[in-house]
Amino acid sequence: MIYPEALEELISEFMKYPGIGRKTAERYALYTVNHFDQEALDRFSQALSAIKSRIGRCRICGHLTETDPCAICQDPNRDKSVIMVVESPKDVFTIEKSNKFRGIYHVLHGALSPLDGLGPDELNLASLWPRIQQSEVKELIIATSATQEGEATAMYIQRVVKNMDLLLTRIGYGVPVGTNLEYADEKTLSKAIENRRSF
Amino acid sequence: MIYPEALEELISEFMKYPGIGRKTAERYALYTVNHFDQEALDRFSQALSAIKSRIGRCRICGHLTETDPCAICQDPNRDKSVIMVVESPKDVFTIEKSNKFRGIYHVLHGALSPLDGLGPDELNLASLWPRIQQSEVKELIIATSATQEGEATAMYIQRVVKNMDLLLTRIGYGVPVGTNLEYADEKTLSKAIENRRSF
Repeated sequence: MIYPEALEELISEFMKYPGIGRKTAERYALYTVNHFDQEALDRFSQALSAIKSRIGRCRICGHLTETDPCAICQDPNRDKSVIMVVESPKDVFTIEKSNKFRGIYHVLHGALSPLDGLGPDELNLASLWPRIQQSEVKELIIATSATQEGEATAMYIQRVVKNMDLLLTRIGYGVPVGTNLEYADEKTLSKAIENRRSF
Repeated sequence: MIYPEALEELISEFMKYPGIGRKTAERYALYTVNHFDQEALDRFSQALSAIKSRIGRCRICGHLTETDPCAICQDPNRDKSVIMVVESPKDVFTIEKSNKFRGIYHVLHGALSPLDGLGPDELNLASLWPRIQQSEVKELIIATSATQEGEATAMYIQRVVKNMDLLLTRIGYGVPVGTNLEYADEKTLSKAIENRRSF
């Protein structure tokens, strides 16, 4: 072993992240030793170990939050008649940055992918059906990614919802096909939300 | 603020690393929440907070180490008559991987850069002079980077050393000009060490 054990341990932690290979992890571990004082290390260390206890899922929409329900579900100024279905909390954060959507969300925490063992039961779908049966809900916007899984998820929801008294729409214009929603810039997302079309 | 505070804190920690921008840091923070259980978080957290107390500088060569002196300085099989001067611990790790050098090291922890306020006193140079005056030392290999700072450092050492009874060499062939040593692959480094030339 070429690196001291303490460094090896830190390297292997960084390598757990997607896109961080061995060389990059080595650079981050060495950067940590060279540029963080003990106070900075403790701050990072604390932020990490406390993240799970501080962040949970909103019981209404499933979004990541420190309060339950989340700030968006609790906000009296949000339009509760429009629910946007997204795959991940990241998508909520991205759409919120665009500042173009004033409704509320439903976070699936994934998309249908039978080959990966991700069926409807693995997604946060069970709580969606009672939500959209509330009389105040007028529109359901499907904002899943333009990937095979995202489309399959959209179709699945469409099948369940189609006989309900509800406007079902899908964001359309602007989101590049074949990519995850999270890579879309804010302008593209604004456009996609504006130009949503009815199923 | 769009992200919950606990996530913001984690995002800003990741952003402290070179090359990690806001978007990448957001991805890492969300990945942490979604893919690390508490045990994994505690492991990462521990590896971070303990790194400074577990890793220090070797009192002989300045390399990062868990033991003092470091394993290389302590190794009876290393050739103590040849000292290679490098800019950073990273360079030692890189050269050790190439498995082509059996001497010992001296780690400067930087290179001369007057504009950045890095003069000889800011580098680990003071302890180099007594080291090379020991009679067992026959050769000093300068392996600083082929950058302006690396060259300036090499010239500085050459000036100090030139009247000493010591073979002074500089690694040459192979290391691409204008880049940091750490980007060189192992084969290039082996070549550079083999083909070192006398000043």
